[in-house]
Amino acid sequence: MIKTIPGGVIAPKGFKAGSVHCGIKRNIKNHDIGIIFSEESCKAAALFTTNQIVAAPIKYCRKIIQNGAVHAIVVNSGNANACTGKKGYNDAEKMAHLTSKHLNIKSNEVIVASTGIIGRLLPMKKIQSGISKSIAHLGNQNTHSLNIAKAIMTTDIVPKHIAVKTRLGRKEVTIGAIAKGSGMISPKMATMFCFITTDASISLNTLRSCIKKSVEDSFNQITIDGHMSTSDMVAILANGMAHNQNITSSSKHNLTLFQKALDYVTLHMAKAIVKDGEGATKFVQVEINEAKSISDARKIARMIAESPLVKTAINGEDPNWGRIISAAGYADVTLDESRLKLFINKITIYKNGLPVTPIPKRLLSEMKKDEIKIQLHLGMGNKSTTLWTCDLSKEYVKINAEYHT
Amino acid sequence: MIKTIPGGVIAPKGFKAGSVHCGIKRNIKNHDIGIIFSEESCKAAALFTTNQIVAAPIKYCRKIIQNGAVHAIVVNSGNANACTGKKGYNDAEKMAHLTSKHLNIKSNEVIVASTGIIGRLLPMKKIQSGISKSIAHLGNQNTHSLNIAKAIMTTDIVPKHIAVKTRLGRKEVTIGAIAKGSGMISPKMATMFCFITTDASISLNTLRSCIKKSVEDSFNQITIDGHMSTSDMVAILANGMAHNQNITSSSKHNLTLFQKALDYVTLHMAKAIVKDGEGATKFVQVEINEAKSISDARKIARMIAESPLVKTAINGEDPNWGRIISAAGYADVTLDESRLKLFINKITIYKNGLPVTPIPKRLLSEMKKDEIKIQLHLGMGNKSTTLWTCDLSKEYVKINAEYHT
Repeated sequence: MIKTIPGGVIAPKGFKAGSVHCGIKRNIKNHDIGIIFSEESCKAAALFTTNQIVAAPIKYCRKIIQNGAVHAIVVNSGNANACTGKKGYNDAEKMAHLTSKHLNIKSNEVIVASTGIIGRLLPMKKIQSGISKSIAHLGNQNTHSLNIAKAIMTTDIVPKHIAVKTRLGRKEVTIGAIAKGSGMISPKMATMFCFITTDASISLNTLRSCIKKSVEDSFNQITIDGHMSTSDMVAILANGMAHNQNITSSSKHNLTLFQKALDYVTLHMAKAIVKDGEGATKFVQVEINEAKSISDARKIARMIAESPLVKTAINGEDPNWGRIISAAGYADVTLDESRLKLFINKITIYKNGLPVTPIPKRLLSEMKKDEIKIQLHLGMGNKSTTLWTCDLSKEYVKINAEYHT
Repeated sequence: MIKTIPGGVIAPKGFKAGSVHCGIKRNIKNHDIGIIFSEESCKAAALFTTNQIVAAPIKYCRKIIQNGAVHAIVVNSGNANACTGKKGYNDAEKMAHLTSKHLNIKSNEVIVASTGIIGRLLPMKKIQSGISKSIAHLGNQNTHSLNIAKAIMTTDIVPKHIAVKTRLGRKEVTIGAIAKGSGMISPKMATMFCFITTDASISLNTLRSCIKKSVEDSFNQITIDGHMSTSDMVAILANGMAHNQNITSSSKHNLTLFQKALDYVTLHMAKAIVKDGEGATKFVQVEINEAKSISDARKIARMIAESPLVKTAINGEDPNWGRIISAAGYADVTLDESRLKLFINKITIYKNGLPVTPIPKRLLSEMKKDEIKIQLHLGMGNKSTTLWTCDLSKEYVKINAEYHT
């Protein structure tokens, strides 16, 4: 039984968060730096963007995560510290050192993350004061989680945090998280930030495989604009303070329960990122069935979800399904037109290579709904995948034509 | 010496065109069907979309083009005859038969092409009367070319036709063409229509290799929205009426001259399609240099050109170059950040892994120009490529959200 509870990222035992406005963002009301801290050092695992061009904090974190031990996370928004060379790397390292010094923890146990504009050096004086003030504000109330969820936002409109409880044997284990989107979102790990905390006791290798599996079916299955970011990161910290029987690869039942709770959190966050996609007015689920392989299904789902023609048709509440079929056709997957079946919100509109005529009237009212479900059966095998995306609106263009200057 | 002349697709000797409004498009002023006819049967070659889902006329043409002989082209707009099953195929075949009967030519020497909405059966009565009327209107004036260029338009704003003359030995050879875009445009052959006529005498194999080579560096190097169409076709018809010495693979000098003139035509048309891209306000050239291979260069150029974040930044006249570098980073090509050099309209803005600071003021005025040239040097080798694209505007979203209903 998975139960959602308040508290977000600080809901698990032993976690605190603190955040402030340090001056990177213009509006003084907007927090732009924050710290997540665990009373005890955590087993930790993280996944990073697969972009060849990565921000300085990613380079730094790739190194320190190898030890599998993390005690705190420091994160800022408004500046990605990307394309900033050696100086940028030193700045990321300095953020870790400042944080560790103030918290009296090891400097190689601090995750550093930055998001925002690419190509500008961090204002290190502001960062320095932001770190000490954030630490002064550390606390474990729901508002602390909400505030740090806001502190990592860029073009996001809605702060994203969640916590769930599950029972493992006689112990309750809690998982909390904060996340941010909402542009530069494309599948292929990980295209955003999600910081996950848990008080579960779990072996490092099991934690690593759990998060990898969970990300595969959540954050790697969303796309907003197909542009992969330089700064993406999903990190999970487990401090063991729930004192459950340690979860390992051989603890089958508890491992399944923990994985389920973790999947619940990551899928919730993945969907929340899509719903808050830049300019999004519709939440779109693309389901590919009867594929020869999962990889085939994913390729097709991605082509459909990233086609600007499909996305604008959905924005216009227009059942222009020819755009869906034609996008499936250029995914580099062998298809047989006569075996395809296409449904929108469960209404059959194309089968045996022919459109259903006349177009069911109900389809027009379905297109007006906030959630659109596209299902395409390929008739080539028995593999399936689901991907989540949003529409493409004039608002998306406005946001991104005006973001920088 | 390549010289542009009037006449478009009917400029080469022996070609005529005719077009009318037959009732597929709503506005009676808009021609929606047309015929291109050569007095003599032509050697012909064609390239088609690589989409797995192809329109009925593509299936039909793939078969008949194998003979290498074409006498006429019949083309309609407003309906793509795609996703229309067996009936759609029979309709395409019927268009060829009706055309051949009226023109008294062989029925397997007629190219059929349809563009427009996907998933609707052709109104064959209208088509039938449109074919006979188009034939009644056949002529070889500039307006005949202009009218058929208009007749193949869908969301295009500007009709696209051109003709060039070049001298091969003592004979003048003419190449003419019409083309259409302007959505569902993505590199990977061919993403639009372009019908090319020439009075050159040329062997079939040479014609085939010339058109393939020419398309590779023109239509395959443009992208508007990354959505590959089901109906794309580039066809060339050569009737030999210029009576030049027959061009073969061994006629080096004349072959080079012919290829150059053909390349001029295809590149002109490719750029014209991008300039008339849906909602386009800027013409963008993406040049990748110092790549290890052409394929690497093309992958990166494509990622940059198809990123909605790059396209909206250009729309907003915003030198947000971090989006360009980060798009290059996810093209699945190994990069070394410290070797990259990025220029916009020849102004250096990023090198040695660092932004040029302060940002040159001139850059802001350059961003306001109608033509933006992005040059990225990878420092990995000596291969280059150039790709052409346009920006992404609110108007694109408007056009495509409202196209269907």
